[in-house]
Amino acid sequence: MESLLILILGGARSGKSRYAESLALASGKKTVYIATGWAGDEEMSTRIARHREHRPPDWLTVEEPCALGNALQTHADLNRCLIVDCLTLWLCNVLAQGDERFHQERTALLDSLHGLPGTICLVSNEVGLGIVPDNPLARRFVDEAGWLHQDLARICDRVVWVAAGLPQILKDM
Amino acid sequence: MESLLILILGGARSGKSRYAESLALASGKKTVYIATGWAGDEEMSTRIARHREHRPPDWLTVEEPCALGNALQTHADLNRCLIVDCLTLWLCNVLAQGDERFHQERTALLDSLHGLPGTICLVSNEVGLGIVPDNPLARRFVDEAGWLHQDLARICDRVVWVAAGLPQILKDM
Amino acid sequence: MESLLILILGGARSGKSRYAESLALASGKKTVYIATGWAGDEEMSTRIARHREHRPPDWLTVEEPCALGNALQTHADLNRCLIVDCLTLWLCNVLAQGDERFHQERTALLDSLHGLPGTICLVSNEVGLGIVPDNPLARRFVDEAGWLHQDLARICDRVVWVAAGLPQILKDM
Repeated sequence: MESLLILILGGARSGKSRYAESLALASGKKTVYIATGWAGDEEMSTRIARHREHRPPDWLTVEEPCALGNALQTHADLNRCLIVDCLTLWLCNVLAQGDERFHQERTALLDSLHGLPGTICLVSNEVGLGIVPDNPLARRFVDEAGWLHQDLARICDRVVWVAAGLPQILKDM
Repeated sequence: MESLLILILGGARSGKSRYAESLALASGKKTVYIATGWAGDEEMSTRIARHREHRPPDWLTVEEPCALGNALQTHADLNRCLIVDCLTLWLCNVLAQGDERFHQERTALLDSLHGLPGTICLVSNEVGLGIVPDNPLARRFVDEAGWLHQDLARICDRVVWVAAGLPQILKDM
Repeated sequence: MESLLILILGGARSGKSRYAESLALASGKKTVYIATGWAGDEEMSTRIARHREHRPPDWLTVEEPCALGNALQTHADLNRCLIVDCLTLWLCNVLAQGDERFHQERTALLDSLHGLPGTICLVSNEVGLGIVPDNPLARRFVDEAGWLHQDLARICDRVVWVAAGLPQILKDM
């Protein structure tokens, strides 16, 4: 199959990124890594650097914290594998821009995914399986993450759940 | 099959309610929606209103925050599908009434489920997969939710896990 | 099969310990229960006592909060089933000892698992599926738990996810 849209879900440190990277290597395609996190503090810098170390040096890294739909349309190509890592950080970033920008970017992302060429791996954190957070912003985030995952799962060809580094197929068609 | 008891588990915004609703529609039966939440604040009112919008207008809605076993026995019928949405809110409500009432209602719920006629869909949030909460009340809630799910899973004919709107069968017999 | 290394993952009160105990009973082997928790406060004492009640009286209980690799090597035997309950508490304990001790014990644990005789059931809590905690120590804990699970899953013969008391096989070989 030449075009494949994959959603990869899992908890923190579940091996989601590693799994996306293994799919990219197996595809044999030129890989573009779209990083949505930005090094706002030292902890985040360390996390980003750690992820970067694992990646092959010939991969192209693109940093795009907000305009993700646009980045996907710019970089997608039949001969490429794109990894978006991760949607959770992107969601954080666009929610912080206010509702109008959030809805614009959310729509742009979902629209961009229809008919994109090549292999696209979307990595996202499952955050809704703990106790409901006290903080209203955190509850909003959990809600939006859950709805986004549902909308993406409908569009994607394959949805994979990763736990302890082990991929489980939730949808494949 | 004329009688079927289904437990539907999943995280926040995982598509659990939507899945229960699709089962009700597929059953072709008259559906009674047993809502356990009550609109204590504006956020909760919004959440309840949003759920209500998705439901077909000919469904009967019954609001029952505590006496759930009783409500199930009152409304269950071979020609009906009952949806309880959700057990997590019910658990919150009965725990707030003190231990005696909680144990009464918990026992009444489990007892009511044996031999109920028709299709019964019990929707509940998985809350025990995050970090252990600091707050002792939250830890109690996580414990009770987990034990309730185990007890219900033993009784139910089918247990379904929903993630990103995609149902996974955990038990079917 | 005479030697079998099993990782049992699940949320709080998901039935993980109960499942490990059922495997031990089914093995027909002499069972050694390695408890990693210590009764630091009343709540913890109650939790430990509740777990202990469920266990057959002829099982040997060993309390080992930190030196787990050593305990496994001491007690493993072809005719025995060992249950470690649980790795999450052990991780808490060794992280509290500082980075040097943590890395020593982590390495000792992973090293000990290669070629252990008998049936070994490692029980651990999945904690990374909720919202990212505010507290840096809690984030560290979530990270280390996730990485530990990935490393263990690679070594183990079988990995089982328990939800609502229902085991799901993630890996079996």
